[in-house]
Amino acid sequence: MGLEIDYLFHPRSIAVAGASESPDKTGHTYFKNVLENFQGKAYPINFRAPEVLGVPTYKSVRDLPENVDYVISAIPNRDILDLVDACITKGAKILHLYTARFSETGFEEEIQLERDILSMAKAGGLRILGPNCMGLYYPKEGIAWGRDFPIESGKVGIISQSGGNGGEIITMGASRGLRFSKVISYGNALDLNEADLIEYLADDPETELIGGYIEGVRDGPRLFKALRYASQRKPVVLLKGGRTQAGTHMVSSHTASLAGAQEVWQAMCRQTGTTNAFSMDELLDMLVAFSCMPPATGVNLLVGGGAGGKSVTSADECEEAGLNLLPIPEDVRKELTTRDPFFGAWVTNPVDGSIMGGSKLTPHDVITLIASSPQYDVVINSIGAGTADPSRQSRATRILEHTVDIANNLGKPVALVMPDSAPENVQQLEATLALRNRCIEEGFPIFTSIGRASRATSRLVAYYRWREQID
Amino acid sequence: MGLEIDYLFHPRSIAVAGASESPDKTGHTYFKNVLENFQGKAYPINFRAPEVLGVPTYKSVRDLPENVDYVISAIPNRDILDLVDACITKGAKILHLYTARFSETGFEEEIQLERDILSMAKAGGLRILGPNCMGLYYPKEGIAWGRDFPIESGKVGIISQSGGNGGEIITMGASRGLRFSKVISYGNALDLNEADLIEYLADDPETELIGGYIEGVRDGPRLFKALRYASQRKPVVLLKGGRTQAGTHMVSSHTASLAGAQEVWQAMCRQTGTTNAFSMDELLDMLVAFSCMPPATGVNLLVGGGAGGKSVTSADECEEAGLNLLPIPEDVRKELTTRDPFFGAWVTNPVDGSIMGGSKLTPHDVITLIASSPQYDVVINSIGAGTADPSRQSRATRILEHTVDIANNLGKPVALVMPDSAPENVQQLEATLALRNRCIEEGFPIFTSIGRASRATSRLVAYYRWREQID
Repeated sequence: MGLEIDYLFHPRSIAVAGASESPDKTGHTYFKNVLENFQGKAYPINFRAPEVLGVPTYKSVRDLPENVDYVISAIPNRDILDLVDACITKGAKILHLYTARFSETGFEEEIQLERDILSMAKAGGLRILGPNCMGLYYPKEGIAWGRDFPIESGKVGIISQSGGNGGEIITMGASRGLRFSKVISYGNALDLNEADLIEYLADDPETELIGGYIEGVRDGPRLFKALRYASQRKPVVLLKGGRTQAGTHMVSSHTASLAGAQEVWQAMCRQTGTTNAFSMDELLDMLVAFSCMPPATGVNLLVGGGAGGKSVTSADECEEAGLNLLPIPEDVRKELTTRDPFFGAWVTNPVDGSIMGGSKLTPHDVITLIASSPQYDVVINSIGAGTADPSRQSRATRILEHTVDIANNLGKPVALVMPDSAPENVQQLEATLALRNRCIEEGFPIFTSIGRASRATSRLVAYYRWREQID
Repeated sequence: MGLEIDYLFHPRSIAVAGASESPDKTGHTYFKNVLENFQGKAYPINFRAPEVLGVPTYKSVRDLPENVDYVISAIPNRDILDLVDACITKGAKILHLYTARFSETGFEEEIQLERDILSMAKAGGLRILGPNCMGLYYPKEGIAWGRDFPIESGKVGIISQSGGNGGEIITMGASRGLRFSKVISYGNALDLNEADLIEYLADDPETELIGGYIEGVRDGPRLFKALRYASQRKPVVLLKGGRTQAGTHMVSSHTASLAGAQEVWQAMCRQTGTTNAFSMDELLDMLVAFSCMPPATGVNLLVGGGAGGKSVTSADECEEAGLNLLPIPEDVRKELTTRDPFFGAWVTNPVDGSIMGGSKLTPHDVITLIASSPQYDVVINSIGAGTADPSRQSRATRILEHTVDIANNLGKPVALVMPDSAPENVQQLEATLALRNRCIEEGFPIFTSIGRASRATSRLVAYYRWREQID
């Protein structure tokens, strides 16, 4: 049902109005990205500079030697009505307005200008993305708004009413191993809105899970239908801005949206199987979980790798997240005690590896043995941070390799925990990157704490239970 | 009332039983730290090795040429009764048992051994720290259990039932600028317990705020009294392990403590003015807040430095934390509009600096002007992360310098926000460290998100309001 707008995102040519020679300008970055990575024709529009990045410019979209499919605007708001007219003349399918200062200002003149743009575009068959947004990141087509977005494609589709939050999802997600099918920042949602885009990603074969940041809901019943449709096909995780009075106030001055009541939003998520994230961290955690973990519907959890007090606080956090730290089952306990009567009888879940000095049991043996019991559904294993201390670093690497072993033979979801504090020096940075990249390479979800890993796991389980129940 | 145990922590001599030549052993680290930094006499006890780190050993504490004040034990549990006897013979004031495997194992024999140790020590006038703990970190006296703890002293006093959590508070706190008066890890609390230590730190002139991680409560009414006494003098922040059934289970196998009901704990915190932290992150945030921010009792908040969608989610998080994002007051609005009719009328709280391109107003001017209104009680300003991109990095540095300016002239608490994700490369690491160190140098509290900054600020306000109300 959503693929009818797919043609908009496969242009044969792109023009950037306001393409600039100055590297600080967004009009420069848009054109540079398109010039370097887009396979089709790229046109810079600039009525002053004769060329941009060595490419001769055109003074107006009207002057282009042929029709153009996709136009990106980085010119001031007062020039947009003329640009819309030019786009229609040149048969453009879509105009992305990075240009801002419309209804979000709250000023009557700017609100009216926005209305006029929509009327003119509708009459001419031109679709609008934005205004007041960063637009499209579609690595497969070579379209991007950032300077440092990954050029590889992935399976995560994102809609974001805020370009800043969209960019943060891309860069912070990338460092955790996420890659994207397409990310669409849609700002004031004058024409293409959240429901259009959710429907689109629901049917998009390149997208296996959907994430998003939403401020306003233009048409509640339609969004409800779109979310329900999408969630039956793939996981959908949304962060809603404007939960409070202060947030709602900011929403109106940011994207001129009506935030609506938080209770209504929560009910919509519950009824449509949408995972409702409460912060960017949680949104990213859920995207990582859904990307890397297989469907799981059981809550019996084994935790490994914490020690001492951390085992205690981990246990608290996992239970508070709604997971069940199943005590060691009878048959497993028997096997452990046979191998070592003293430690085997003392081992707990979370497994506290620090107590096992001098034992015949190693933490690795213990976790392998317990994890293989069919009574456990999911495993969270903490591997520690990268460190400048060679002996601790080799210990962390060893735990990671053990975890890879366990996970490969288990066939159940395994989440890894690596604290994410800024390293103190280059050695520690390199150690951290080595560990992190190895985790990503092996396809593990990485979380910065056992608490976050357990909350993400619990919500993943809730989604797949919802799927089971509606099937 | 608590200083009666202060003599225990000012030894003239320290003996390490189980001092080892092997750098991997904790007995090595204890002795190495004492040898390098402690001003008094340091004795290695080892019945096999003739010397440790070039210092001739003694086979037993009994063989020492003189009496000894402080004994650290890193020898097996079966040898502890003999050690206690030797300590008493040599007039030791305190025996710190790093040695573990007593009541926390749950085994009758080990529980009895622990009881026997206490009886013998009591009869001989010897105090016990532990067993099953990392003991004392007292930089001023040159006593530490870690390899990389700061050697400088500070004003934060910590008690921690878990050595691991205690160590994490020290190293993670140090990277956020915290320095410690003393940190006492007390494990099974066989003799010295949480109430003794809270009373001690309450009266300790070197300690200006108290933090801690507690698993069990040995004597509820006494701890209540100690907390009430301490909180009237300085802020107290505690993280309680064992909130859930799973956590309570782990508490018993970690430090053989009874965790008690969470409701009782919460009531105790409420009634004694203790700040109850729910995670290590929150505990550290509160220690940073109480260390760096002056007393504040107002909740009217100004937020600067977020942009677009981040302003929206920040607003939500601040209001949910219980702070009031006071809209721009009339007189300030008038001044802003006089300076720039278009942007002045549009500016919001949080201040979204990204809308001000082309304005006569800069984000710096706007924040300075609004922050100086007496209607605002606290300011949270986001400065962004360190980055490998020179233009963004110089922007972050500029915001930081502006914030320093504003804060120095304001006389109200200012919290800074810097995301703490692992850098992608060395340039970004160096940029991050430069920003972070500059913040610390200027005495700012740094938080990794506006949400965390606002929750810490809100709880700081709650504490000082409690102080006001009891005065």
